Amino acid sequence: MIITKADLKFIKSLQLKKNRIEHQCFLVEGTKSVQELMISDFTVELVAGDNLFLEANANLLEHTTNYEIKASDINTISSFKNNNSVIAVAKIPSQSTINILPNEFVLALDDVRDPGNLGTIIRIADWYGIDKILASPTTADFYNPKVISASMGSFTRVRMYRSDLESDLKSYDGEIYGALMNGQSLHETSFKKGGILVMGNESIGISPEVENLITSKITIPRYGHAESLNVGIATAVICDRIRNQ
Amino acid sequence: MIITKADLKFIKSLQLKKNRIEHQCFLVEGTKSVQELMISDFTVELVAGDNLFLEANANLLEHTTNYEIKASDINTISSFKNNNSVIAVAKIPSQSTINILPNEFVLALDDVRDPGNLGTIIRIADWYGIDKILASPTTADFYNPKVISASMGSFTRVRMYRSDLESDLKSYDGEIYGALMNGQSLHETSFKKGGILVMGNESIGISPEVENLITSKITIPRYGHAESLNVGIATAVICDRIRNQ
Repeated sequence: MIITKADLKFIKSLQLKKNRIEHQCFLVEGTKSVQELMISDFTVELVAGDNLFLEANANLLEHTTNYEIKASDINTISSFKNNNSVIAVAKIPSQSTINILPNEFVLALDDVRDPGNLGTIIRIADWYGIDKILASPTTADFYNPKVISASMGSFTRVRMYRSDLESDLKSYDGEIYGALMNGQSLHETSFKKGGILVMGNESIGISPEVENLITSKITIPRYGHAESLNVGIATAVICDRIRNQ
Repeated sequence: MIITKADLKFIKSLQLKKNRIEHQCFLVEGTKSVQELMISDFTVELVAGDNLFLEANANLLEHTTNYEIKASDINTISSFKNNNSVIAVAKIPSQSTINILPNEFVLALDDVRDPGNLGTIIRIADWYGIDKILASPTTADFYNPKVISASMGSFTRVRMYRSDLESDLKSYDGEIYGALMNGQSLHETSFKKGGILVMGNESIGISPEVENLITSKITIPRYGHAESLNVGIATAVICDRIRNQ
């Protein structure tokens, strides 16, 4: 199908959160992410790709509205300089309340602001078999193009729940682990089969209100002099221990 | 001192590698990185900061050439949109050959291309008390502003050695660990007191030539579905195990 100027304008508009909210749609960009999208449960509104992508992925695209567009046009509407293969529009799934199973581990993010960090954390959760993430209202928008891109396709497998965090933590009766500077050594912590792991803001960590709800404070031991570890890095180091119990 | 247009032009020119090589100087940008620089062994050529930074850090700046410049001028010469406090120029230290002590752990990077990843790895090394990193010729430039910035000041404490890697690995008689897809589980690996940990390229991992020199192949177990972990993330997860032996 031939893409119209209005379509191009609509796609590009989804770079902004207010338009994503209005249309309840978000962008998925680049070959790998779009391929992952096509085999996921998400509802796909349209795919705009160059000839090469459309031909190579014809079997994935049988049931979607596809537009063939020039690489230069993809570049114009894409959030990323180096994307000239494909961009897709998908529906934002309806929000629901999290249901944490017994023996299930989930992540909770308290004010993680950087979209790149959030995307990285989604990818780490997916690697470690954690498929639900709770996030505070001030945590980055799940559907920001940088989040989707940094998750490397893992956004299709990890379910995100927006939450005021405090009420969800209060109503949870299992162990609530939190990464803090003054906790027990990670290397001496024995994790239960299930629980919530809370990770905090890039600069100030976990807020005092949420810290009050942590039942097990943990700290990654430092052997050198760096002031801190990035929140994505810290999440991975802790998840690796959780899974190796 | 009043900064001249030629000074501004010189500073800005160091964003490019060819100019860094010609002048053997590099940029350090933002409050925290410059503060770390001032208490390090690096030779500082000049500091160009706004009034606020210069006043608050007067004690650190006693022995350097300081220019007071407007926030808007800092913005013009900085590599980063959000830096409007300070930029410094430091000398690139002279290259030397690495000397690995008995029981010392060092990192070796085989073609790690992304400057953000390299900076993150430097910060991780610093956290885990690893103060030497060997890097292949195609690994990102240590003095790229994005590397310096992502290291969050750790570039002052971790020594970088450019190396053809193969000859350094061949002449090393300790254990050479490598992160590969087909290795022994990290969770079942017992690390010796010292060794080299090799991390590979973001897309293709460790090259076949270097893989031949690995004496202990290790793999981070996966519990979910993500295809891979970012190289910085993987480095941290392995270093945490090395230090917890």
